[in-house]
Amino acid sequence: MTAEFDQRIQSYTQQVDAQLELIIPPDTGPASKLYQAMRYSVFNGGKRVRPALCFAAAEAISASDDNTVKIAAAVEMIHAYSLIHDDLPAMDDDDLRRGVPTCHIQFDEATAILAGDGLHSLAFKQLTNLTGITASINLEIIAILSDLAGCNGMVTGQAVDLESTETQLSVEELNYMHTHKTGALIEASVVMGAMATNQADEAQVNALRSYARAIGLAFQIQDDILDVESSTEQLGKSQGSDSHNNKATYTSILGIEKAKSEAERLYQESLEALSPFDDKAEPLRALAKFIVHRSF
Amino acid sequence: MTAEFDQRIQSYTQQVDAQLELIIPPDTGPASKLYQAMRYSVFNGGKRVRPALCFAAAEAISASDDNTVKIAAAVEMIHAYSLIHDDLPAMDDDDLRRGVPTCHIQFDEATAILAGDGLHSLAFKQLTNLTGITASINLEIIAILSDLAGCNGMVTGQAVDLESTETQLSVEELNYMHTHKTGALIEASVVMGAMATNQADEAQVNALRSYARAIGLAFQIQDDILDVESSTEQLGKSQGSDSHNNKATYTSILGIEKAKSEAERLYQESLEALSPFDDKAEPLRALAKFIVHRSF
Repeated sequence: MTAEFDQRIQSYTQQVDAQLELIIPPDTGPASKLYQAMRYSVFNGGKRVRPALCFAAAEAISASDDNTVKIAAAVEMIHAYSLIHDDLPAMDDDDLRRGVPTCHIQFDEATAILAGDGLHSLAFKQLTNLTGITASINLEIIAILSDLAGCNGMVTGQAVDLESTETQLSVEELNYMHTHKTGALIEASVVMGAMATNQADEAQVNALRSYARAIGLAFQIQDDILDVESSTEQLGKSQGSDSHNNKATYTSILGIEKAKSEAERLYQESLEALSPFDDKAEPLRALAKFIVHRSF
Repeated sequence: MTAEFDQRIQSYTQQVDAQLELIIPPDTGPASKLYQAMRYSVFNGGKRVRPALCFAAAEAISASDDNTVKIAAAVEMIHAYSLIHDDLPAMDDDDLRRGVPTCHIQFDEATAILAGDGLHSLAFKQLTNLTGITASINLEIIAILSDLAGCNGMVTGQAVDLESTETQLSVEELNYMHTHKTGALIEASVVMGAMATNQADEAQVNALRSYARAIGLAFQIQDDILDVESSTEQLGKSQGSDSHNNKATYTSILGIEKAKSEAERLYQESLEALSPFDDKAEPLRALAKFIVHRSF
């Protein structure tokens, strides 16, 4: 990727990290371990893809602002909580995430469960005081997150994933699972980022939703490709761990070449969705490219 | 308690149960097990104390309405999610709740974790479309729940509880733990129930908050008394389970007689807080009496 893209991502990351630092300060009170576990999980070198999508979506409409930062922090906290719970022994039982011990290994299972729950509530708190938009739009934004992070999105996707282990899925079933499990929060990031500018019209929001849905699936397909092709060191988790867990993946169902061409098709679809937008959507275009061509 | 009180509680329960039935319908789709687990945990014969407090608080101000029902459902879903997670092997490791298998025993641990997460998000969704109040007050209500169910309340209390096992606590430390773990959601129930009528002034909300804080602690003290005095059959969980888990309790710290007089003192404090209210606060007064004098 270009140096400009790298700088932009770095700026987004610095802004969201500063906000997360405000929301989850080091705490020395009776619940200090809870705060340590939340901080550990949020500041563990994540790629901050979802926050970047919030910023880029806001910029495609007008400009990012304080609302963008809050929404970016909220989606990152939801993402972090979902990873903490997903890594638990009763779920995926992963000891390693991004090259370091997962939350329940570093702390303990009970603390990990609560750290997830705490981040979950904090995410909604972040969205209750957006500025420069009507309170009605603010409520709509909260409704979107509660839907897409919950039972009309991520949690449903996780549940379907659980049910599907050791099962042969069709591509349609795999799409259903991933549009919920991964895609929904990506969609929420883009749509909320745009809406919080208070300048997005319905057609723009719909176009951005199409963009997000395309890159959401592409993101997962690229994940599956990397799981097969990359080394453990590059991934920060065991190479081939998904296929070893007998999980259906795009590469196992489609084969690696067809998976790659599907990711490319979705990339083109995401660019097509952005065609009504001018240069201000360049960050979104660059993010789509990054998502499909990343090597980690 | 009186027949009138019983009828009132029954009416509250029917209303909140109907709403929960709407929100969490039986689902036959790919995530049907998730919905089964959420329904199992929400419809397991809970006393619906928190919903009753929402209704009674609304009636103390003016009258309960559709907003009250939604808020009551939201707090009950938060309560249910917290019990599911609290019962997990890594937390309290309870097999039995209200006389039936806990969620992770009836289903499995992974499903239980996700059912809790799903209920958590659904609770916030419920609060995004209140009617007859300004969107700003609606946002305030969401902020209250995210605070008091999360890191300024229930989750913090749970974390402190975890840290305190096998530790000798002072009464002050025990109060800190329970005002967060149990009291915060009771406070949220009362305050949100009142605010959603759109007719509560600040003095009334503050009086109701004092009421809720007093009965929140009294509720926990009575729980500890019942844990010592009741049979396993009456409790629906193992008698003396808290003291067997080496948890600090009011009865272990204060002794049973002093615990009883403290509960009585808090009961009187709760009535005192209601003194500015007329007969419309009778349901709240009756609930306070029930909470301190219940035998299950």
